[in-house]
Amino acid sequence: MIVAMQENATEEQIQTVVERMVAIGFNVHRTTGALQTILAGVGRPAQFDHKDFELLPGVSEAVRISSPYKLAGRGFRPEGTIVRFPNGVEIGGNELVVMAGPCSVEGRDQIFTCAAQVKAAGAKFLRGGAFKPRSSPYSFQGMGLEGLKLLREVGDATGLLIISEVMEISQIELMLPYVDCFQVGARNMQNFNLLRELGTVRKPVLLKRGIAATIEEVLLSAEYILSGGNYDVILCERGIRTYETYTRNTMDISAIPVIKHLSHLPIVGDPSHGTGRRDMVAPMARASVAAGADGLLIEVHPNPDKAVSDGAQSLFPEQLVRLMDELRLIAPAVGRTIMEPAAAATVAV
Amino acid sequence: MIVAMQENATEEQIQTVVERMVAIGFNVHRTTGALQTILAGVGRPAQFDHKDFELLPGVSEAVRISSPYKLAGRGFRPEGTIVRFPNGVEIGGNELVVMAGPCSVEGRDQIFTCAAQVKAAGAKFLRGGAFKPRSSPYSFQGMGLEGLKLLREVGDATGLLIISEVMEISQIELMLPYVDCFQVGARNMQNFNLLRELGTVRKPVLLKRGIAATIEEVLLSAEYILSGGNYDVILCERGIRTYETYTRNTMDISAIPVIKHLSHLPIVGDPSHGTGRRDMVAPMARASVAAGADGLLIEVHPNPDKAVSDGAQSLFPEQLVRLMDELRLIAPAVGRTIMEPAAAATVAV
Amino acid sequence: MIVAMQENATEEQIQTVVERMVAIGFNVHRTTGALQTILAGVGRPAQFDHKDFELLPGVSEAVRISSPYKLAGRGFRPEGTIVRFPNGVEIGGNELVVMAGPCSVEGRDQIFTCAAQVKAAGAKFLRGGAFKPRSSPYSFQGMGLEGLKLLREVGDATGLLIISEVMEISQIELMLPYVDCFQVGARNMQNFNLLRELGTVRKPVLLKRGIAATIEEVLLSAEYILSGGNYDVILCERGIRTYETYTRNTMDISAIPVIKHLSHLPIVGDPSHGTGRRDMVAPMARASVAAGADGLLIEVHPNPDKAVSDGAQSLFPEQLVRLMDELRLIAPAVGRTIMEPAAAATVAV
Amino acid sequence: MIVAMQENATEEQIQTVVERMVAIGFNVHRTTGALQTILAGVGRPAQFDHKDFELLPGVSEAVRISSPYKLAGRGFRPEGTIVRFPNGVEIGGNELVVMAGPCSVEGRDQIFTCAAQVKAAGAKFLRGGAFKPRSSPYSFQGMGLEGLKLLREVGDATGLLIISEVMEISQIELMLPYVDCFQVGARNMQNFNLLRELGTVRKPVLLKRGIAATIEEVLLSAEYILSGGNYDVILCERGIRTYETYTRNTMDISAIPVIKHLSHLPIVGDPSHGTGRRDMVAPMARASVAAGADGLLIEVHPNPDKAVSDGAQSLFPEQLVRLMDELRLIAPAVGRTIMEPAAAATVAV
Repeated sequence: MIVAMQENATEEQIQTVVERMVAIGFNVHRTTGALQTILAGVGRPAQFDHKDFELLPGVSEAVRISSPYKLAGRGFRPEGTIVRFPNGVEIGGNELVVMAGPCSVEGRDQIFTCAAQVKAAGAKFLRGGAFKPRSSPYSFQGMGLEGLKLLREVGDATGLLIISEVMEISQIELMLPYVDCFQVGARNMQNFNLLRELGTVRKPVLLKRGIAATIEEVLLSAEYILSGGNYDVILCERGIRTYETYTRNTMDISAIPVIKHLSHLPIVGDPSHGTGRRDMVAPMARASVAAGADGLLIEVHPNPDKAVSDGAQSLFPEQLVRLMDELRLIAPAVGRTIMEPAAAATVAV
Repeated sequence: MIVAMQENATEEQIQTVVERMVAIGFNVHRTTGALQTILAGVGRPAQFDHKDFELLPGVSEAVRISSPYKLAGRGFRPEGTIVRFPNGVEIGGNELVVMAGPCSVEGRDQIFTCAAQVKAAGAKFLRGGAFKPRSSPYSFQGMGLEGLKLLREVGDATGLLIISEVMEISQIELMLPYVDCFQVGARNMQNFNLLRELGTVRKPVLLKRGIAATIEEVLLSAEYILSGGNYDVILCERGIRTYETYTRNTMDISAIPVIKHLSHLPIVGDPSHGTGRRDMVAPMARASVAAGADGLLIEVHPNPDKAVSDGAQSLFPEQLVRLMDELRLIAPAVGRTIMEPAAAATVAV
Repeated sequence: MIVAMQENATEEQIQTVVERMVAIGFNVHRTTGALQTILAGVGRPAQFDHKDFELLPGVSEAVRISSPYKLAGRGFRPEGTIVRFPNGVEIGGNELVVMAGPCSVEGRDQIFTCAAQVKAAGAKFLRGGAFKPRSSPYSFQGMGLEGLKLLREVGDATGLLIISEVMEISQIELMLPYVDCFQVGARNMQNFNLLRELGTVRKPVLLKRGIAATIEEVLLSAEYILSGGNYDVILCERGIRTYETYTRNTMDISAIPVIKHLSHLPIVGDPSHGTGRRDMVAPMARASVAAGADGLLIEVHPNPDKAVSDGAQSLFPEQLVRLMDELRLIAPAVGRTIMEPAAAATVAV
Repeated sequence: MIVAMQENATEEQIQTVVERMVAIGFNVHRTTGALQTILAGVGRPAQFDHKDFELLPGVSEAVRISSPYKLAGRGFRPEGTIVRFPNGVEIGGNELVVMAGPCSVEGRDQIFTCAAQVKAAGAKFLRGGAFKPRSSPYSFQGMGLEGLKLLREVGDATGLLIISEVMEISQIELMLPYVDCFQVGARNMQNFNLLRELGTVRKPVLLKRGIAATIEEVLLSAEYILSGGNYDVILCERGIRTYETYTRNTMDISAIPVIKHLSHLPIVGDPSHGTGRRDMVAPMARASVAAGADGLLIEVHPNPDKAVSDGAQSLFPEQLVRLMDELRLIAPAVGRTIMEPAAAATVAV
């Protein structure tokens, strides 16, 4: 932490600040300039709020220097993390991974049809919600356990990996036999009790950025999971809330290269929630890959017009096929590959 | 819902939209203009997303008209809700209610000292966290059950009502014997499972606005609690995230009169979290009351410089006394009163 | 400026940074910690961008310490600035000053009627636009010179001071004989050529915060005017753009005490533009005063329903009277006064 | 416009609203539902504010339907606009166009060196500021006319087209002989007098989105230029202000496909201002093209570390070369081409 004193700060005020810094565990180095005294606190006190120092008399500004995350920082694993799944699929490696499927599991026919479609297009994961967080109490809330069983069944039948959202601690145990990857939704990004529990699980976790979360906060939330011993964390950019309302959220594509710069964790883009509009999904999926994403999470529905939730942002299956073809052209520009669906199928089963 | 067709929409496109609207439960009235056809859907389908309609061919714009909340709307109780507590204290009535206390319960001495101080200043509630959501996994996480017991003890000893934050469903049962009012934090404003459970409890709930929540979303979250049968909901404005970073959040004072206009529920201001800086708490507390708030939630600590959390935004006890004096001058301008501490003490015990 | 090096930075990288800092005019003090080296640059180079340093190899973070404004900072005039007008009215002194009037000057009758009304309520300034910036090219664009002449005439007749918006350099000369105070609109807050010209004028300038401007940027814009030699600058908070759309802008009431803390310049609130809704003007005007504003800028129209612009946010004259009565109750809580209209009239004429 | 009445609106209130709608030029169609009456106003009154209607008694909500821009809307030219330059370069056509160069013209050597470099990389335009808007009054303000002459000279020598920023009306005449395209900066996006003047010029205008401008506002600003008769308008996404501060702005990549959908005007991306960091320029340039941009505006400097302004966001010349190679791989995925530099050179000279 750096504390810059005001130009007219008294020696007594400076001493008070120094003492407070030492008290919480800093070694303090003092720079006395013609205009201003600057105090540099070196070390890593377990816990402090630099804002406390800004309120002390004579202080002009207090700035935290060390980033508050350790395990999530790029320095912890400069080479980058690759999350490996039992069937050989890797996220964070050379190949781009697409996770696709409906917002909600609605029934046997729907999920089997959709799985076949996304697999044919080249996806490696089937996504589908069994528990749905809905902003209105009067909306469809998901199929629950029955939905999880359908997901597992279709996953086993097709070789697709299964990813589904966990909404609270009590669901972790329940979901464990059925999913290959837990998804933490944007609204739970700072549900720290849930994150801590997921740190003790031995399955990968995809952590979505909250709609008002800074990049630093995303990495701090990842730190909760990592510090529990679960290093298989995948981050996900899915749009933030800004003043622009034409799209449901503003997808912050720049967060992708920034997170690549600051952290070793893989990151995927979610253009479906990022835009909320089917016609914007393909452009933003392409942009995510061009900006360096390790993969994509995309909503696809066999019949979007009949979807019980999020139909407006779900692709028609043939749109996913076309998008995958476009992505195969872009991938080499960022040193990546996407396997052809046939090849993908061979690996997956 | 209103659907405006594009100027060159074909009759077939119009018919498709009409059929979709009827299919989900609307009665459709059609207005054919020289330039544009407009379809008005009348009725209240249980569930639909107007964005789905914007993607249909020939549609220019789809606009939802009826507000999606019912029980939280002003029309449900035009006279306004007054939340009544067993000792006679009311929130939403003529008198302004101040809830004050430390961010976290840190120990017996701290909480008893603080309780005496806030009571002397005229507060009716003691606030204090037993479970703390912290953005870093390396920070203090609260005293838990022991903290709750201390709160109850000091509440009984002083006559102050107790409000404390509930962070997950499993804590509700645990907290029930110890608190007079549950507080739902900003990060849990859209933890719908938690809200639904709180709807079945028979104690009041103070629901804080999320840092990226619209006013409509706050009211929808309140609807979750109300629709479970718990009508004693108090809303709380505590700052939203904007591009301005000098203050930790931007306290949206206008949300106070807007919520008064749209809803019958009481609303209080939280200038401590709204600004994150002790020196801005008093001005924003005064502004909240001047804008029509029913009360305030304020962090106070016997020794803010030693607080284990949020010290920078906690008032010194004597600052609360001075603030209460200022509020007594402002209250009449909005047709309110604040009792003198002595009088408050008499009622409370 | 402080530059924090990465933990693994090499001595060569550190030397490069030191040389760059010295090259632009800093004296550099080095703190070598067990984990991290920190470089403190002392001095005030005329011009540099700390972001340049963040891109140098081995650098973790670069932080600017000295605020980039000098004349606008509180330290320049710790006692605060009072802007004095020829008729004795002061902004920034003990008395709260209300500036009121229509969005646009529409004609002789309208402006004379309105002036009489706002004066009767206790306002000291008549506001009214002669040149109107409109976001649609098809909207009313103002009466121009004719409007200015009407303003001057009614000002002379009533003793009200005249404030009107200047939109470009060529209008300054034109407006000089007619106005007592120039108003710079939010869209021109960073029109630096205009600000520079206003620095050479010898009439006060009211500078509105841009809808996306940080507080630091407002003060930097004020610096442009001050550095030209015009010290009579009044700032104005009029709402910023956030994700919340119920109100047209989100009025950042906390900017009022923050600016009081950082700068010596007076600040007024504009609840009309801050909310865009007539029914929210009074609550936000009261909140502004309670938070410490030196005055208010309020749109009032003799017949808001017939206003050619901004009718929805204009008060009816009788609403201004009621508001002034409420403000008289609040003023003492912040150590201020508002004269009774009769008294005001005596001074003004 | 649609006006939805409250459920308990009286017949008299409804009649008042109908009369107001008719008075401003609407034909009104009334839909009386069991719960709610809805009034659809058909027609295009020259000027009205739907917010006025929300304040009338009995009104629940008023919604504007017709988009307020006409000439800028996609419907006006469904096939899309191609802006053609005298030397045959086209923006909005099949080929992607890159505009590159330094933030400011600093001198003869710098601009000639830079021009050769960007041309060798395949750029078609040289960008460079002669007049600089700077947020601090103590920063470099540009070379002015001398800079313009250098730009023209180097343009003629290399065959590169020249684009430079115009900051106020008085500069238009001055710049006309020297530039091939006027650039309007983000801060001037709503300088309506300037836009109106540019509408009368017969050279193309590149209009940058303001940092707090909605997409609708960008199109309204374009409408100002179009309505003056200048149809050669190119839009530019250059980042908006959000709560995330790691990047200087948040580049709203989704604005690119959205504007393509809503308007016929070409749009380019500016990743230099969009991110403010050199290391993020290439990823965001690739993302812009992948999302459908018609071109790019990129800051390049022969020696960024010595640039007098914006060095931190300027590419080294060799980085531009590498980026162009990546873009050549991506272009086919969006049905575009970028000529090899050699070919480009042949056409340009």
